[in-house]
Amino acid sequence: MLNFPEQNLRTPGPTPIPDDIVEAMSRPMINHRGPEFLELLTRVTGQLKQVFMTANDLYILTASGTGSLEASIVNTLSPGDKVLSATAGAFGDRFTDIAKAYGAEVEHLQFEWGSIVDPEAIRKSLSQDPQIKAVLVTHNETSTGITHPLADVASVVKGEFDKLLLVDAVSSLACVPLPVDGWNCDLVGTASQKGFMIPPGLAFISISEAGHEAQASATMPRFYFDLAEAQSYLERGQTPWTPAISALYGLSLALDKLLAEGLENVYERHTNIAQITRDGVKNLGLELLAQDDAYASDTVTAIKIPENIDGAKLVNMVRTEENVVLAGGQGKLSGKIFRIGHMGAVTPADIEEVMEAIKIVLPKVGFSAP
Amino acid sequence: MLNFPEQNLRTPGPTPIPDDIVEAMSRPMINHRGPEFLELLTRVTGQLKQVFMTANDLYILTASGTGSLEASIVNTLSPGDKVLSATAGAFGDRFTDIAKAYGAEVEHLQFEWGSIVDPEAIRKSLSQDPQIKAVLVTHNETSTGITHPLADVASVVKGEFDKLLLVDAVSSLACVPLPVDGWNCDLVGTASQKGFMIPPGLAFISISEAGHEAQASATMPRFYFDLAEAQSYLERGQTPWTPAISALYGLSLALDKLLAEGLENVYERHTNIAQITRDGVKNLGLELLAQDDAYASDTVTAIKIPENIDGAKLVNMVRTEENVVLAGGQGKLSGKIFRIGHMGAVTPADIEEVMEAIKIVLPKVGFSAP
Repeated sequence: MLNFPEQNLRTPGPTPIPDDIVEAMSRPMINHRGPEFLELLTRVTGQLKQVFMTANDLYILTASGTGSLEASIVNTLSPGDKVLSATAGAFGDRFTDIAKAYGAEVEHLQFEWGSIVDPEAIRKSLSQDPQIKAVLVTHNETSTGITHPLADVASVVKGEFDKLLLVDAVSSLACVPLPVDGWNCDLVGTASQKGFMIPPGLAFISISEAGHEAQASATMPRFYFDLAEAQSYLERGQTPWTPAISALYGLSLALDKLLAEGLENVYERHTNIAQITRDGVKNLGLELLAQDDAYASDTVTAIKIPENIDGAKLVNMVRTEENVVLAGGQGKLSGKIFRIGHMGAVTPADIEEVMEAIKIVLPKVGFSAP
Repeated sequence: MLNFPEQNLRTPGPTPIPDDIVEAMSRPMINHRGPEFLELLTRVTGQLKQVFMTANDLYILTASGTGSLEASIVNTLSPGDKVLSATAGAFGDRFTDIAKAYGAEVEHLQFEWGSIVDPEAIRKSLSQDPQIKAVLVTHNETSTGITHPLADVASVVKGEFDKLLLVDAVSSLACVPLPVDGWNCDLVGTASQKGFMIPPGLAFISISEAGHEAQASATMPRFYFDLAEAQSYLERGQTPWTPAISALYGLSLALDKLLAEGLENVYERHTNIAQITRDGVKNLGLELLAQDDAYASDTVTAIKIPENIDGAKLVNMVRTEENVVLAGGQGKLSGKIFRIGHMGAVTPADIEEVMEAIKIVLPKVGFSAP
């Protein structure tokens, strides 16, 4: 049996699990084809719809968040379908890669990592190519700490062009506002280990009426992620395949807590902690990757590694000497940024500890504030 | 928050979780891109190979067992490939359906539910159609309580014809002998919620050298279940997508326990409890679905519903009046059998309780032993 020291885990997911949720997850197994599971699944599905702010159908998948992205694509598209993917980071690229893997013809509209995707550019692409059937977009780009202007994107994609809108909401939902019906998002996928405060292993996906229409003619092959199967079993209070029951116990309590707190308060809590984080970072003499606070993420903050500083060494020393676990950069930002997660149950006191740790380590890696 | 009464859960998965494993799963989250996770993943992967009795590559997926079956197919086959699927139950049919969903040309060799798949018939099919590239087989058919003669099947498929052999080992591995290398099985998929004594949510899959060769030219689309990605990340001590960390904590302790007990002892424990179950059932005047103890499963026992007895009522009353949760029949055996799971941490005393419960309820549903 491995034993790890307790750490201050401040990666952008997994996030810390509150004690009462840990306890809830410790309850004995139940029959996933029995009446207790029906009660559990029916209840959490209804509560999830409240958090998604949707009346759309919604399914719980036993998978990482990536599974929900794959589900959104393979259930609504056919090989050869034209898709516009607007991206500015590693998770946008992943969404793009899934569409390509299943044979979509992808127009990849790439923006600088650290900036937002531009609704005007999306408008232009959709005007130029009426064959485009669907648009893929990442609501909150975890790899860069940027929240894309999803409301504006949706207004172009749905309001002006009436295309399918597929949204990666993995690090946004249950943290920042995402009114799925209000913004008319067709497929929205997210995961358990961020704002929902439970371990990784569950993904959630909603599908609109337009999504269901696309589903009826979509020919990309699917089985494990077939949402028609999910729908058919949900009607009996079941999932098609054996679900992650412990995680569902935790989810049930997490949803009780989120809804009792009130979504507006949850969003405000994330806005506040993000502000505290950004202020702290600036106080240390460091620079944010986001050039404008207006689109800096409320769930994860990306900080530029100062020139001539070894970013990997910084993150390592913060972990080994101060017991605070931060995330480095991904893909082309590897070695150029580090990231602080502040989703879910993270508190201002936790962020104070993070700032203290960074402050102690910075001079050790050769940085002196300007 | 939902609260369910403690039950004697005797379905064929999920199975009860021992207290120390529940406690292990309660540990705080770690960074899935950090050194602690590398240590955890490396350790459990090595231990899983011991339980699989294989030197093959092996990957851990965040998914139900069905995900591992999909992975075995989509990573080794191309649309249009001829596949022989030998089945005698609901899970064999599911394996078949996955292959069809991804465009394989499936020869479906169906045997009566409750009997074994016949190696001689497989030999005949492979002789008649040299174009067949792979054979799908379910080691232990959970829906019928039958263990198919996998050693004999493998000896035909691999020894005589050298075809790819894809095995569903969901309700057999870690319970009954399955020497993956000894029997030369190419892809073997299983799941966490049966013999491994942890909650549902993880799947495990091994792939042989021949499997890797097939993988190199396989064109079925895949992303979430792409084993090449799993391999690439495993080399860095990671999984491609955020893994179910809590379940991995539990798995680590479960593997410690299984290997400390010794696989031969684990198998013997299952043989014994299965015999106790079958003896108990016969003592109650009931009849097994398996016509021959030689292939009656050591992990799940299927019992015929006596004539003129309402099977659903029997299972319901055993649950509501005696607090013992059994499983009904699936698919074409719905209403015709009920099933008792005796995998993992289930003890002879647990089975005594099951027999006592059934004994009390049988007369209430109108059954009197012959």
